[in-house]
Amino acid sequence: MGHSKTMLFGASALMLSLLWPWERMYSEEKITPIVRLAELEIDPAQLEQYKEFLEEEIESTTRLEPGVLTLFAVSLKEDPNQIRIFETYVDLAAYEAHLKTPHFIRYKEGTRNMVRSLRLLETDTIRLGGANSKR
Amino acid sequence: MGHSKTMLFGASALMLSLLWPWERMYSEEKITPIVRLAELEIDPAQLEQYKEFLEEEIESTTRLEPGVLTLFAVSLKEDPNQIRIFETYVDLAAYEAHLKTPHFIRYKEGTRNMVRSLRLLETDTIRLGGANSKR
Repeated sequence: MGHSKTMLFGASALMLSLLWPWERMYSEEKITPIVRLAELEIDPAQLEQYKEFLEEEIESTTRLEPGVLTLFAVSLKEDPNQIRIFETYVDLAAYEAHLKTPHFIRYKEGTRNMVRSLRLLETDTIRLGGANSKR
Repeated sequence: MGHSKTMLFGASALMLSLLWPWERMYSEEKITPIVRLAELEIDPAQLEQYKEFLEEEIESTTRLEPGVLTLFAVSLKEDPNQIRIFETYVDLAAYEAHLKTPHFIRYKEGTRNMVRSLRLLETDTIRLGGANSKR
């Protein structure tokens, strides 16, 4: 049992470092992932369809692209046609690869006429703090 | 070894569900965490001091408040005085508790004269997609 417990502890520590990749990179390897913010305004008449495209795109990205760390999408309560997406990528290559995936292209082309405006903001990371992270 | 491997697999699955609390709540328990966006403009002359307060506040929150799932803070490259914070809380009680913590009050009072504008946006979650999550 002592051996199993040691292995479990080791496995837990490994999972911890694997599952919070931005924490790992941010605090240990001193590599900062790329964060981008997307601010969109959607045609109100097509909002539900737009959200279906977006959810499907996020689901595929999450499943297929380990280099995409977060795609957190919300709408503003004060104006539900306003969408905000908090996007985190391991590095620039992961971002560029994401733009070429079939699921992203499907989303981009499928929603072209639904998007009234799109603002893509590049950022510098101050700190990405998450619960359960170890420092 | 067969037994150890089974335990390792079990431990890995457990860690996975524990370490991505929003995924767990979002996809299994059907509880959606609260997401808020903060948009701030900081006095350029006090930007470095402001960021020190913010980093310290995020570090304390991450360490002390398991109900705060993310405090992801970035500045815009096009205007570094513009700060964006993506805040995720387990529930409303966690948000309200956060506002009463000594570290938040210290941040809030310490930065009062550094913040030129603050916009707090309530949101509805569309999807919080993260790498390595299981659905």
